[in-house]
Amino acid sequence: MLQDIGKRARQAAQALALTTDSQRAQALDNMARQLMAETEAVLLANRADLDQAMDEGMPSAMLDRLALNPARVADMARGLEDAARLPDPLGKTLWEDKRPNGLVIRRVSVPLGVIAVIFEARPNVTADAAGLCLRAGNACILRGGKEAIRSNLAIAAALRRALKDSGMPEDGVQLIEATSRESADALMRLDRFVDVLIPRGGHGLIKRAVEYATVPVIETGEGVCHIYVDRRADIAMAASVIHNAKVSRPSVCNACECMLIHRDIADAALPVIARKLLDAGVTMKGDADSRALVPEMLAAGEDDWGHEYLGLIIACRVVKDFEEAILHIARYGTGHSEAIITQDPSVAHAFLSQVDAAAVYHNASTRFTDGGEFGFGAEIGISTQKLHARGPLGIRELTSYKYIITGNGQTR
Amino acid sequence: MLQDIGKRARQAAQALALTTDSQRAQALDNMARQLMAETEAVLLANRADLDQAMDEGMPSAMLDRLALNPARVADMARGLEDAARLPDPLGKTLWEDKRPNGLVIRRVSVPLGVIAVIFEARPNVTADAAGLCLRAGNACILRGGKEAIRSNLAIAAALRRALKDSGMPEDGVQLIEATSRESADALMRLDRFVDVLIPRGGHGLIKRAVEYATVPVIETGEGVCHIYVDRRADIAMAASVIHNAKVSRPSVCNACECMLIHRDIADAALPVIARKLLDAGVTMKGDADSRALVPEMLAAGEDDWGHEYLGLIIACRVVKDFEEAILHIARYGTGHSEAIITQDPSVAHAFLSQVDAAAVYHNASTRFTDGGEFGFGAEIGISTQKLHARGPLGIRELTSYKYIITGNGQTR
Repeated sequence: MLQDIGKRARQAAQALALTTDSQRAQALDNMARQLMAETEAVLLANRADLDQAMDEGMPSAMLDRLALNPARVADMARGLEDAARLPDPLGKTLWEDKRPNGLVIRRVSVPLGVIAVIFEARPNVTADAAGLCLRAGNACILRGGKEAIRSNLAIAAALRRALKDSGMPEDGVQLIEATSRESADALMRLDRFVDVLIPRGGHGLIKRAVEYATVPVIETGEGVCHIYVDRRADIAMAASVIHNAKVSRPSVCNACECMLIHRDIADAALPVIARKLLDAGVTMKGDADSRALVPEMLAAGEDDWGHEYLGLIIACRVVKDFEEAILHIARYGTGHSEAIITQDPSVAHAFLSQVDAAAVYHNASTRFTDGGEFGFGAEIGISTQKLHARGPLGIRELTSYKYIITGNGQTR
Repeated sequence: MLQDIGKRARQAAQALALTTDSQRAQALDNMARQLMAETEAVLLANRADLDQAMDEGMPSAMLDRLALNPARVADMARGLEDAARLPDPLGKTLWEDKRPNGLVIRRVSVPLGVIAVIFEARPNVTADAAGLCLRAGNACILRGGKEAIRSNLAIAAALRRALKDSGMPEDGVQLIEATSRESADALMRLDRFVDVLIPRGGHGLIKRAVEYATVPVIETGEGVCHIYVDRRADIAMAASVIHNAKVSRPSVCNACECMLIHRDIADAALPVIARKLLDAGVTMKGDADSRALVPEMLAAGEDDWGHEYLGLIIACRVVKDFEEAILHIARYGTGHSEAIITQDPSVAHAFLSQVDAAAVYHNASTRFTDGGEFGFGAEIGISTQKLHARGPLGIRELTSYKYIITGNGQTR
């Protein structure tokens, strides 16, 4: 029963909130060790998941995300150890004031409480999400995709055993066995016990969570990232950055999906940039002005603007000025990561101020929007909403705060 | 059309995000001046609202909240001027790091964007909410109760005129004329244009928002606040604090609804505390142990625990120990404000750590949970959820942040 899972999570969260930094770090180290010790069981479970997935004709890219091997299990364990080494985000005094009436008010960081994560067929998320939630003193309720259920259960079992052996509540990590759509829906409405829901997955899952959840949701992931090549761009830099942002890992949310180029530099820059992309096997889809300069380009339709390809395709548009670039991004961007390439500091400043996105870049690749690259350690997702947290969700973003007020009998 | 209102709000928000601190402060001062200048029109509109409300038999407490007079209009204007004097919450570097690859990453405070506020029959909220939203660079969409619609429209008209005269987008403040339930519902699902929804009102409104909204919601307001009198409490202090927390303004969310008292001190303390409350006209409802000590007490039923009376009624329960008090609060509290009265620092520390609420007090009245009392200036509500902001929502809580990353061609 999901209600019972919720109740147990709430109880575990209350206990976890009172643990010390070193207890939590030790528990994560024990989880890493236990996961390594149970590698064989995890791989056996994964083998069963893979067999079924292959029988059912799962595409190879998905099979690759589902597949575990000893190295990938070791990666998960290392992720847990890395999380253990992150600085404690709890109990920090974020602000303090002594009021004229003598009251001392402190804003102190505390865990969020119970975090629910709904994810798809990537078993590593079980260990990664559990580790980050626990590092920040939270209990988690995980609901993974049905394709990975055996793997997820095996991983969660190891983590729970380690928690128990560490003297921590094993219900700090719970995995929901039911993988029906109903179980995800029910979790979305468990607001009595869940403080926040993080959906990790495709557009459909996130849309469902936004529309159906009564639990507060942090929207993650959708990334239609643009790179704008200003008239005063360094052309070699533009080519290198766009190539990197498109090609280095096209399937992720911080990859570049669309380049905008100022018409004053298009003649000189676009053929250079396009050459590098075409040589890397990128399909380019452009407006008429772009295609006039790069004959290999296909025609872009209205659907191409704002399209998250998640593959080796890039849209390309020549803009008549800075304002047109800004308007394009405001209209088609998803508030994830947006970049400008320019040698003009005042244009760069205008871009960084005016573009409304989690991360705005001057002369760098959008691919850096990542918890590790930002120095936060691992992340549980990239928030594209403005409430609570924006950009990479590291352990700091998995905390809340409370006000602690001490007096000597003050009344109002 | 609500879509058009949303679109205009989004455009206004983009413009407001680029205004300077002094422009925003000046606009608020102008709004205050314009509101004063249009006092007569506002009072006339309010008169019409009041006439209709009286015809329809509105209860006198509600009539009082609805009624404006020159002093109350001046209070609204002063609220706007006070907001103008608050320190700018925008453009602050909240965190900064230079990464090993040379990227400089800054987390900088920015407006939330478009804030929707749904409220009931209190016309002052129109000016108060608009002022706070604008101070933090946000556009707002206000949807007030139908009982106050003429007053709200008159106030909003004055504010919009002042915005326009200040060279700011008048759509920074929009009031929805339609006061049907459908207009509130539609606003709750305007996620394409609205960044956050703050419902200000009773339980029904907040529940509807949580269940129905696709816009991220900040839950506000419900306050079942407890005061626990520990066995080592100063009895006179306990009586004074509980009296204050119950009697000073019983209709508000930070008023005390339930006192818990340790059995070791109940004999000595409860009659003293009860005398003070009974003399002030408070109805007390207690468990059997409490009633044995205070015969004037009525019998509390299971419904009295966790009940938000919002009036001169208090529930009372004798607990056998600290743990029972903590469990009672965990079960029946709403995460608003909870207090302990004790001279024992270690018990106080345990209470402040273990109780999960926006504000936890040692030896002070729960009535201090308030933006003004915390030194934040005015507030738009008290958040009882953990995501984004907890406790009083001042202008800092009406901001988000973005990451600004500057490089010299870095790729990943």
